[in-house]
Amino acid sequence: MANQLCTVGSQSVRLQKEVYINGNASVVGKKEGEGPLGSLFDMVGEDDMFGCNTWEEAESSLQKDAVYLALGKAKRKPEDMRYIFAGDLLGQSIATSFGIMNYNIPLLGVYGACSTCGESLTVGAMAVSGGFAKEVVCVTSSHFASAEKEFRFPLAYGSQRPLSASWTVTGSGAFVLGDEKGENCQAKITGMTVGKIVDFGLKDSLNMGACMAPAAAATIAAHFIDYNSQPKDYDKIITGDLGSVGQRVLLDLLRDKGFDIADRHMDCGMEIYDPKKQDTHAGGSGCGCCAVTLSAYILKRLAEKNWKKVLFVPTGALLSKISFNEGQTVPGIAHGVVLESL
Amino acid sequence: MANQLCTVGSQSVRLQKEVYINGNASVVGKKEGEGPLGSLFDMVGEDDMFGCNTWEEAESSLQKDAVYLALGKAKRKPEDMRYIFAGDLLGQSIATSFGIMNYNIPLLGVYGACSTCGESLTVGAMAVSGGFAKEVVCVTSSHFASAEKEFRFPLAYGSQRPLSASWTVTGSGAFVLGDEKGENCQAKITGMTVGKIVDFGLKDSLNMGACMAPAAAATIAAHFIDYNSQPKDYDKIITGDLGSVGQRVLLDLLRDKGFDIADRHMDCGMEIYDPKKQDTHAGGSGCGCCAVTLSAYILKRLAEKNWKKVLFVPTGALLSKISFNEGQTVPGIAHGVVLESL
Repeated sequence: MANQLCTVGSQSVRLQKEVYINGNASVVGKKEGEGPLGSLFDMVGEDDMFGCNTWEEAESSLQKDAVYLALGKAKRKPEDMRYIFAGDLLGQSIATSFGIMNYNIPLLGVYGACSTCGESLTVGAMAVSGGFAKEVVCVTSSHFASAEKEFRFPLAYGSQRPLSASWTVTGSGAFVLGDEKGENCQAKITGMTVGKIVDFGLKDSLNMGACMAPAAAATIAAHFIDYNSQPKDYDKIITGDLGSVGQRVLLDLLRDKGFDIADRHMDCGMEIYDPKKQDTHAGGSGCGCCAVTLSAYILKRLAEKNWKKVLFVPTGALLSKISFNEGQTVPGIAHGVVLESL
Repeated sequence: MANQLCTVGSQSVRLQKEVYINGNASVVGKKEGEGPLGSLFDMVGEDDMFGCNTWEEAESSLQKDAVYLALGKAKRKPEDMRYIFAGDLLGQSIATSFGIMNYNIPLLGVYGACSTCGESLTVGAMAVSGGFAKEVVCVTSSHFASAEKEFRFPLAYGSQRPLSASWTVTGSGAFVLGDEKGENCQAKITGMTVGKIVDFGLKDSLNMGACMAPAAAATIAAHFIDYNSQPKDYDKIITGDLGSVGQRVLLDLLRDKGFDIADRHMDCGMEIYDPKKQDTHAGGSGCGCCAVTLSAYILKRLAEKNWKKVLFVPTGALLSKISFNEGQTVPGIAHGVVLESL
């Protein structure tokens, strides 16, 4: 039996069969635990090694713990999950490989830099809504120390950071998606807008907010056009990790496109730390930033019906140490996911 | 309207709506062009720089050209593609980001090491079969020089390689998938078996065939069990890049599980080079290896009805320079795709 096309406009989908977030969990490091959302996270590490020997192993343990807790909340076992959609920022996604291996769940690895949380939910929701799985789990992570080593300088160098720099969140968020509503279901996914790569030619890896903002603006505008909707149709429009610099760029670019979202925009990177007290400059970033904020804060607001419908738009900067050193630009990408209360 | 579940067994899918490969193309480097399949590739570079300034840019140009040629064969334009499912071996998938950016197609990045071709076809087929897209394009690549730099030593070191080492294929394969049969359609995708990470504890990144063979054996055995099928139901069972060492391990492991595939096993890594004349040791490897072999050789055999049904199983080794240097193992993963002639 043929499935009907559920495409909308040029790059969006409106799910014919909605997908339920039946379990979700967030695991973070010490600094995130001391931030404004600290009391909402499911697990806060005492230090950022999490009992491991390397930063990479510590990041793996974040994913392992987040999946464990999300499965617990959904009252499911690893073997109930048809696939795991997972990714992280490290080269060859090793935090994922070594983090989730022992769950023995068929793995589909995804990569979209810091937008990976949005991509994993997008592809995971397609798998469930399309009838390819009854239940899947999505997980993404980042770790401040492993990311600094991967993209910039080892921490031991003690290099200075400009005020436009963001602080990679040490954290992992996991989400159990299902085709039926579970008893701890927090919200449902009703649609997605898959983003394109947008390159404004910026090359500053210490100002990633500005590098990613054009992609966020493009995805959000495409979503409004595809859905024939307006900012007022959403209680919140939430970007991943643009930070304070990127937020200004985003609001300006969207205003130029005819959309004013200033009164309902929120950026996970600006929520997770107190930049004055915590010296985190432009805000939080990393795959983990929006993943843990989604689990701990956004889904809670939806579950409590403070918000009815949000557009969740994780943002990613598509660079590597090598592309940066070879003088390439830092293009951005952003994926939109429509989340609604039950 | 709810889509019906099309899951089979514990980790497989049998598509209710089959997906057509309406265009496909292969672009390779000089060495691959001199190998046994040389005359079958769509485009062979004169040298491995492809007119670019860096190895990474050269790999990006492979993806760009492969997508261009595959779209041409399908008589489609970039704007006809709803999504592009793409990936490569480099850290943060930069060959992909800079290769396909200008097509302006919404991107869903995938990572499964050298199994990425299988993963991109799996997720791409789900998107099309599930009604989330009418048409998508899938592309993956690898490049000998960028991969050596990423995983082992810069070429300029001139380091020696053991006979168990494989040679990363310089090449990219692209596939246009559609929900209706196009006029240049070569074959159809009828099912998939998503693989789990399998870790036998091996740590030798210069013997990746042995590291990946257990994952290939697990996926192939799971496929037979899920589908309640036998080796004789397939004209060929084709792994990605196990090479000669990995092939022996695979055949032994499957025999232990009760499946003898020796008379119908083929490994893309063993087809693409002449190991005696080309000094490529255990065989070819990399995301590009199975992708170009699928496009140039396997789909041709299916189109000519020499083969009616094959199980195509790209294999990946989940390591990075960092995980290797930190003493981690090299786990494997393999994804199975069922391809049938029209």
